[in-house]
Amino acid sequence: MPAKITKKGDFTLPGEAGYEALTLKLAERWGADAIRDCDGTVLSDQIILADYHIYSTICLVRADNEWAKANRDKLQQNYLMSNPVVAEKDTVEIDLLNGYFRDQFEVNTNDDPKKWWQVFDRTTGQEVSKDQWTFNSAKGIVIVDQPEKWHKYTVNFLAYRIWEAISMYNHITNDWGDREHQMPVDPVYPETQKFILKYLQKWLDMHPKTRIVRFTSLFYNFAWFWGDPSIQKFRYADWGSYEMTVSPLAMAQFAEAKGYELTSEDFVNKGAYCSSHNVPSKRLLDWMDFMNAFVVEFGRRCIDLVHDAGKKAYMFYDDHWVGTEPWGERYRNMGFDGLIKCVFNAFETRLCAGVQGVKTKELRLHPYLFPTGLQGEPTFMEGGDPARDARRFWANIRRGLLRVPIDRIGLGGYLHLVEDFPDFVNTIEQITREFRTLKQLHINGSPYTAPLKVAVLTAWGKRRSWVYVGHFIHGMALYEITESLAGLPVEVSFISFDDILEQGIPVNTDVMINAGKAGTAWSGGEHWKNKKIIEAITEWVACGGGFIGIGEPSACQYSSQYFQLAHLLGVDREIGLTSNIMKLDITLSEGEHFILEDMNGDIDFGKDTENIFILGKETLALSEKNGSAKIAVNPFGKGQSIYLSGFKFTPENTRLLHRSLFWAAGKHKEYGPWTCSNVRTDCAFYPKVMKLVVINNSDTAEITKIIDADEKSIEVSLKPHGIQIIDL
Amino acid sequence: MPAKITKKGDFTLPGEAGYEALTLKLAERWGADAIRDCDGTVLSDQIILADYHIYSTICLVRADNEWAKANRDKLQQNYLMSNPVVAEKDTVEIDLLNGYFRDQFEVNTNDDPKKWWQVFDRTTGQEVSKDQWTFNSAKGIVIVDQPEKWHKYTVNFLAYRIWEAISMYNHITNDWGDREHQMPVDPVYPETQKFILKYLQKWLDMHPKTRIVRFTSLFYNFAWFWGDPSIQKFRYADWGSYEMTVSPLAMAQFAEAKGYELTSEDFVNKGAYCSSHNVPSKRLLDWMDFMNAFVVEFGRRCIDLVHDAGKKAYMFYDDHWVGTEPWGERYRNMGFDGLIKCVFNAFETRLCAGVQGVKTKELRLHPYLFPTGLQGEPTFMEGGDPARDARRFWANIRRGLLRVPIDRIGLGGYLHLVEDFPDFVNTIEQITREFRTLKQLHINGSPYTAPLKVAVLTAWGKRRSWVYVGHFIHGMALYEITESLAGLPVEVSFISFDDILEQGIPVNTDVMINAGKAGTAWSGGEHWKNKKIIEAITEWVACGGGFIGIGEPSACQYSSQYFQLAHLLGVDREIGLTSNIMKLDITLSEGEHFILEDMNGDIDFGKDTENIFILGKETLALSEKNGSAKIAVNPFGKGQSIYLSGFKFTPENTRLLHRSLFWAAGKHKEYGPWTCSNVRTDCAFYPKVMKLVVINNSDTAEITKIIDADEKSIEVSLKPHGIQIIDL
Repeated sequence: MPAKITKKGDFTLPGEAGYEALTLKLAERWGADAIRDCDGTVLSDQIILADYHIYSTICLVRADNEWAKANRDKLQQNYLMSNPVVAEKDTVEIDLLNGYFRDQFEVNTNDDPKKWWQVFDRTTGQEVSKDQWTFNSAKGIVIVDQPEKWHKYTVNFLAYRIWEAISMYNHITNDWGDREHQMPVDPVYPETQKFILKYLQKWLDMHPKTRIVRFTSLFYNFAWFWGDPSIQKFRYADWGSYEMTVSPLAMAQFAEAKGYELTSEDFVNKGAYCSSHNVPSKRLLDWMDFMNAFVVEFGRRCIDLVHDAGKKAYMFYDDHWVGTEPWGERYRNMGFDGLIKCVFNAFETRLCAGVQGVKTKELRLHPYLFPTGLQGEPTFMEGGDPARDARRFWANIRRGLLRVPIDRIGLGGYLHLVEDFPDFVNTIEQITREFRTLKQLHINGSPYTAPLKVAVLTAWGKRRSWVYVGHFIHGMALYEITESLAGLPVEVSFISFDDILEQGIPVNTDVMINAGKAGTAWSGGEHWKNKKIIEAITEWVACGGGFIGIGEPSACQYSSQYFQLAHLLGVDREIGLTSNIMKLDITLSEGEHFILEDMNGDIDFGKDTENIFILGKETLALSEKNGSAKIAVNPFGKGQSIYLSGFKFTPENTRLLHRSLFWAAGKHKEYGPWTCSNVRTDCAFYPKVMKLVVINNSDTAEITKIIDADEKSIEVSLKPHGIQIIDL
Repeated sequence: MPAKITKKGDFTLPGEAGYEALTLKLAERWGADAIRDCDGTVLSDQIILADYHIYSTICLVRADNEWAKANRDKLQQNYLMSNPVVAEKDTVEIDLLNGYFRDQFEVNTNDDPKKWWQVFDRTTGQEVSKDQWTFNSAKGIVIVDQPEKWHKYTVNFLAYRIWEAISMYNHITNDWGDREHQMPVDPVYPETQKFILKYLQKWLDMHPKTRIVRFTSLFYNFAWFWGDPSIQKFRYADWGSYEMTVSPLAMAQFAEAKGYELTSEDFVNKGAYCSSHNVPSKRLLDWMDFMNAFVVEFGRRCIDLVHDAGKKAYMFYDDHWVGTEPWGERYRNMGFDGLIKCVFNAFETRLCAGVQGVKTKELRLHPYLFPTGLQGEPTFMEGGDPARDARRFWANIRRGLLRVPIDRIGLGGYLHLVEDFPDFVNTIEQITREFRTLKQLHINGSPYTAPLKVAVLTAWGKRRSWVYVGHFIHGMALYEITESLAGLPVEVSFISFDDILEQGIPVNTDVMINAGKAGTAWSGGEHWKNKKIIEAITEWVACGGGFIGIGEPSACQYSSQYFQLAHLLGVDREIGLTSNIMKLDITLSEGEHFILEDMNGDIDFGKDTENIFILGKETLALSEKNGSAKIAVNPFGKGQSIYLSGFKFTPENTRLLHRSLFWAAGKHKEYGPWTCSNVRTDCAFYPKVMKLVVINNSDTAEITKIIDADEKSIEVSLKPHGIQIIDL
């Protein structure tokens, strides 16, 4: 039964007052069923009264600047660490905001510094006694008396944010001139909650035509500290971390709830803050849990108002998403009807699709209709090519869409910017059609997935499934791996060390992946000192499991090894502590190995982890560079391991990973059904409707052969970035 | 007064019985005044009775194999760590010598394993209780009962060495077939001492013609553990470490002398052993001190016999030099008349020349008259070019010889091998002439040295001056640096962290250098956690000192920084713990900096330490690669620091270092007198005799200009590897 391909619907268009004709023309052309406003645009009556669902964005914490100005003691806060100052005399003066963006931050002089702040000797790492320093609020400086000479000192202090970060970004990026700076209020205060609920109710009353209230997002932005513009624009950014949720009131409530007090240093963490890249402490996880409970509870009260007004509530899974934890247990209690994720890549598609407890999943496509992109590169301006960008992003996103269902797509920004880019308009039209086709296939049943269960082990586990800490970071091995995984026909889950300790390795796991740099949350840091972890994984591999380690898997200098699973991997890394211990010569194994069968030419992992040596003759090196193993495989008991010295998301490496999963699982004989001969192409087979989708991920024409379940081969020709749907 | 250039003398020739005519012909041609035997060669009467001083080699610990065979319980020993074995069942069996060369080692079954050995769970790093394991001496295995399943276990055990390492190397390298394996006896036993003294006396009596007794060397070889030849030839080698000095008797004596007991793990050190690359523990330094006292004391008794016999005693500063510590305080008490160092490089020249308390310094030149070199490369055989090798080594060595006096040079090996290499014979003739010329200049007074005092800071300090842990290791930054330093007209000393703690930074030090990988003895490891060190160096720089950090200087993740002197260097390294903290953009400073004035083209440090970021606007980046600083300079107080991301011994980098020393010292205006315009050339001015020596270090013809003390310039043309001596 051929799927009915709809030409309209499932598309959200950003409308723009003053460009009504354009708005309605493109709504028709792109088959929109909904029109939205954006931060910086409004919709006019002519648009609102046309026959479209109206999405209206709202960001409650920056909604009413008058209230914020009248309640500056209820602005959102965070801890900052001052720049270090070396003690050269009998006192040290530390200018707290030196190097920070003074338009973003203002020192909190309301809450007692002696109670909430800390001064550290960062030479020794010791806190300075509270009676040894004073705060001069007029000058915004802290003075340390009788410091240890030549040591360096920092202050952890509370700062109010006097310019809401996303609004600040939009303001500066789009040159909003002297438009008033919006300030973020903190819903932790009962007064703020009362104000917000009242404001929201009024807003709902005033937006009768709005069908969908899009929260952008809830209350707390990801961490984003800006710098003194004469020095550096940004100082710290982490899409997943909780620094911006802090206030003395919340910390007091935390102490009551959890039975112990946090300090400023729990958030400042020697200047590293609570970055998602770092292994979270139990204390940080407690704080996240506490904030999550609060955000879900108060968020629910807001969403209830939306529902009571007969509207739907969607959440934007970016910006102020901190505290919502869409992959957490509480998320379903929040009551959102939809979740919108801004995407460049397949892994973000999976991130959005995998959230439980929300009905509608929507992808906001890049590029945004802004003059410049996230890195400041030209987009809708001279030198930009937004159509090319859109095609490339779509090619990545589409890999994920073959595997998981998504309900809607859409755009954001200033619609009028597309006027000079007709190729972009055509490209989006093409994309909307493809999207509807793919959506229809999923409605009729899931695509074929190989009987292969992969668990990615990180310190975060499910909480940061698909390793979401921001947009794609090139060169971070685990990002590159998840992007490859996101388009493969295998089952993928993310587990933590605590999961293993509490529940063991999930039943039926075929392959475990651990990747990243030593000391990071991705590799696992000191979790690898826990013998229970070593025992569990070693036993599991001995019984047939497959372990794939990439970069510095299980790395943590401890006892006699650097890779704590060196005995499984068959390799370890020389970091300079055993330089004079001679290493075995690496002689590459002869004959082609299953995992390398589709590789052509040199293997390019981008950046290789160097100084990898093999431990014994059983370890088979498949690739090496300058005497360091790039790829090695090692048997252990009934299982086997694979080591890769790095990873970069390329067609060849994705195939290498695909084959590695099968080989590590001991299932390489089962590799074949519904795979493509050409690594630049992917396919998905939908058995219910007997349809085969084949996509070309590259910008060149490609020919590929698909192996079906009977080992028969189907040849397909594809245009650049093309797609073919074949009835079988 | 022109120096008298002698055509004879100061040269030691290796003679060879059966090649008497060749021996005497070459002795004449090369101007030898002494003829020596070698391990593997003897001198005949025809040679001995010719008019040359006779050098005879003796190695007391392998001198009499009959005595060794009759006293196998007095063979030398060492601790080995067995290969790790993962516990898969209720017991673990560990084959102790698995993977080791069974011709070199034999398990010591004489001393109680339960007293002297240790078994470790290397998964947790914990020792296994002694009643949990048993030793099966018949099988040479240890059995651990009820191990923790899936953990890995190793045994630290004592092994006798049944083949003396240097003799073994010579035997295997030169194919000695079934010649008996010489075994090393340990002079720690009173019986061995008695035997050795008696043997030596008899030997002296039997060698009336011997004028110089060359000890090769004393009692304990540097550590050299060989592997099962089917797996790997060598397992561990360290030219400066003490693993081969161990025995239960010595350990018992140590406990008595120092008041505490060492364990096997003090030597095995998690399998890293006591490598010179690792920061020595206080316990290791105590052991070295204890052994040094013993070696000096018993060595002195041997040397006294030599002197009583009217002969001179020379020591070979390689092979069995461990325990003698030529740079230590006790060395002068030993009474050696001469010290012979085998050299490839300038730093080894400085190493030999700098030893106090011994009159005659002699260099043994490479290549040895062996078919193959130290790395197994062809030398005196087809494919070898020993003349080219000799010229290259000499060009390096000569840089050092310009700075410091050496008394003699010589060769070693099988003389007959030179017969097929007439170019080598010519080259050595040329080298002997040059050597005598240079020696003569030093006799008339020291060359000009700039008023610039450099202290190289390592965990070893003076003990491992010139970073002697073996032959030149390419790519180890500090080796490459010392090789550059060895030819520069500045004063160089080596200091330790303990020196700074005990005596402060040496008075009048202009520049301090710290270089190497984090965690190594060269960089300093955990010494950098000591606030007294940070205070001392910071204050010293604030008062005008110059700090040069290379690679990972002051590196040790601690408190909020990786480089503990980041505040001086103006840079730090991102190792993955603060990835989301944004770094300042590196914009190269405009205009040429003093330290780069003689650089042409790209700066090549070989391997760069990556991810180096600058801390503030005061830090001036002079070179960068992929956004990581390669060269940065930073002011602090009255002083300044320079950071280099790596170092390779090249003419350009040597000049960069030379200029950096002056700039860091704040003396760049004093740079100039007696420097060469051409970086491939060096010069030395001998003010007493008003002679200027100019050398060409390269194998191409070069023209260079020398700036004299009055800033006048002298142009000189040089042949490949040429030398010119100019009267001023």
